[in-house]
Amino acid sequence: MSYFRDNIDKLAGYEPGFQPQERDVVKLNTNENPYPPSAKVIEAVRNIDPEQVRRYPRPLGDEFRAAAAEVHGVSAENILCCNGGDDLLTICFRAFCDEGRPVAYPVPTYSLYPVLAKLQNCPVIEIPFDNEFNLPGKLSSTGAALTIVCNPNAPSGTCVKIDELASLADEVKGVLLIDEAYVDFAGANCIGLIKDFDNVIILRSMSKGYSLAGLRFGYAIADEKLIAGLTKVKDSYNVNVVSLAAATAAIKDREYFQQNVEKVKTERARLVENLRGLGFSLFDSESNFVLAKCNNCRASEIYDKLVERGIYARYFNQPGLDDKLRITVGTKEQNDKLIEALKQTAG
Amino acid sequence: MSYFRDNIDKLAGYEPGFQPQERDVVKLNTNENPYPPSAKVIEAVRNIDPEQVRRYPRPLGDEFRAAAAEVHGVSAENILCCNGGDDLLTICFRAFCDEGRPVAYPVPTYSLYPVLAKLQNCPVIEIPFDNEFNLPGKLSSTGAALTIVCNPNAPSGTCVKIDELASLADEVKGVLLIDEAYVDFAGANCIGLIKDFDNVIILRSMSKGYSLAGLRFGYAIADEKLIAGLTKVKDSYNVNVVSLAAATAAIKDREYFQQNVEKVKTERARLVENLRGLGFSLFDSESNFVLAKCNNCRASEIYDKLVERGIYARYFNQPGLDDKLRITVGTKEQNDKLIEALKQTAG
Repeated sequence: MSYFRDNIDKLAGYEPGFQPQERDVVKLNTNENPYPPSAKVIEAVRNIDPEQVRRYPRPLGDEFRAAAAEVHGVSAENILCCNGGDDLLTICFRAFCDEGRPVAYPVPTYSLYPVLAKLQNCPVIEIPFDNEFNLPGKLSSTGAALTIVCNPNAPSGTCVKIDELASLADEVKGVLLIDEAYVDFAGANCIGLIKDFDNVIILRSMSKGYSLAGLRFGYAIADEKLIAGLTKVKDSYNVNVVSLAAATAAIKDREYFQQNVEKVKTERARLVENLRGLGFSLFDSESNFVLAKCNNCRASEIYDKLVERGIYARYFNQPGLDDKLRITVGTKEQNDKLIEALKQTAG
Repeated sequence: MSYFRDNIDKLAGYEPGFQPQERDVVKLNTNENPYPPSAKVIEAVRNIDPEQVRRYPRPLGDEFRAAAAEVHGVSAENILCCNGGDDLLTICFRAFCDEGRPVAYPVPTYSLYPVLAKLQNCPVIEIPFDNEFNLPGKLSSTGAALTIVCNPNAPSGTCVKIDELASLADEVKGVLLIDEAYVDFAGANCIGLIKDFDNVIILRSMSKGYSLAGLRFGYAIADEKLIAGLTKVKDSYNVNVVSLAAATAAIKDREYFQQNVEKVKTERARLVENLRGLGFSLFDSESNFVLAKCNNCRASEIYDKLVERGIYARYFNQPGLDDKLRITVGTKEQNDKLIEALKQTAG
């Protein structure tokens, strides 16, 4: 006999990317930013007052909300602070979905969505992308309570146009969650949509663009009525004082952020060019990773050979992805090591 | 039309205790420890490496698990790290409860339980404590999938005996969650039960005994099969690198912890004596707060008069509690200020 609900027992659980602890590995498997966080972030962490540690945090993270509102040109009431983007995804499933209220999303995409759906026991409507990762037309008529589009999409790195997402927001019956975890590396974003659509939630992560993966900080941008409802679902004190101080310092340091994003984009272009030169096929990526298809090699073998050399990429053993590797854009040095290793193994 | 599930729309939401931001108030309303965290905690926070901030944390918090296992005489596999005790409560409701799987608990108790039940849309079986906060016999036969006993109980501060909880664990159909958020200030705890009962989960918080409320860290202690199931439900990276480092430093510094706990207990005894001298009725508290019943005064009025003097206690406007104030045990100086203010207002 199990003590758990049936859906929990049946669930395999989400498999996070491998986190090697050694510092000298070339870690290109979980899409961290290759550059350190802003010096102002580290200063904020080191300046934490013991009195702040002793007391509960502000439940809504007022300080971050004000800073993010200014950066994005919205009100503080349009912002919800979360314990990483995953916390916001969990909150949305719990707020909008249940046995009678399905979730819909195009596939392949972020593999956490179906896990959260199984936890919430809601029906899942998966609509396949076409071969070029265009937005499937059928997504607008599913009747789902929650529709999710990861944009840029993981693991393809591709974007769909804002106009298409605006049309989708207009047509879906329920909420449209646009998962912009990787948008800092893209050409455009969807924040403008929240002024026209009261059913759009933008998910943002500080893990990628701001190098804060270890601190767990993400946030929602949406109509204030949606934010008020999601606030009832989140844990009261879901974000701690150190993350709040660090995320606030990070989002305020626009110059450092822009510089890092540009460096990643420059390296991304070089990485794509080199991988194509080695015979891989790649879509143009608008994120901080690329999805490289092996034309003359087996992705699983390349994955193993890279690990032998202390280089970690991400391999998904599933249809449509098992001939590809997802590779995070690293520093110039890391990318050079990867390219050199691939020259030796993927020829 | 609402985009939310009906149960979310109907929910009032949990009301966290007021968090005044001024440093000079006497804040006795949300049961923080009045003493600062260990110097080793602050050192751990300040020593965080930018590389740790940039990378994702270890999903299971191995370092803390090992330290907590040693302190409690269990295995690392018996420990689950959580983003505060509230995160563990949320995980348990999602793991065990749904429309057909009720939760049961004695009342009055921690006011978050019914909120989480409404979010999960599960039936609630509330069994009243008697006037002396003895464990209600009926609790063992509810058939609930999850039974929760807050021990020491909030807001009464009272404990039930371990033998009674062992019998309850033996008799309930589902899981027995013993919420030991305040147990660091009690005479005994229930960790021993997890060796005999595969359905017992012990909840621990670092907010009270270890002065880490601002860092959000709690954990579960349970049979490893229960921990494995709960791991599937939690967010992959629910605890950040700073909290992990701080909580690990805190739990290892046994001497500082013991000293602080003893100081709180000594002040608690003095506070209880003084409040009784002022005509309040109190149960013997085994936590870091006391529940004081106004015999010759109105609790809501006293609350307001204390606020005027910059002193915050907790007032619950609900039957059975609206003639009482819950008062956190502060430092000697804070408690003196409270007693002096009560002498002037509650006479």
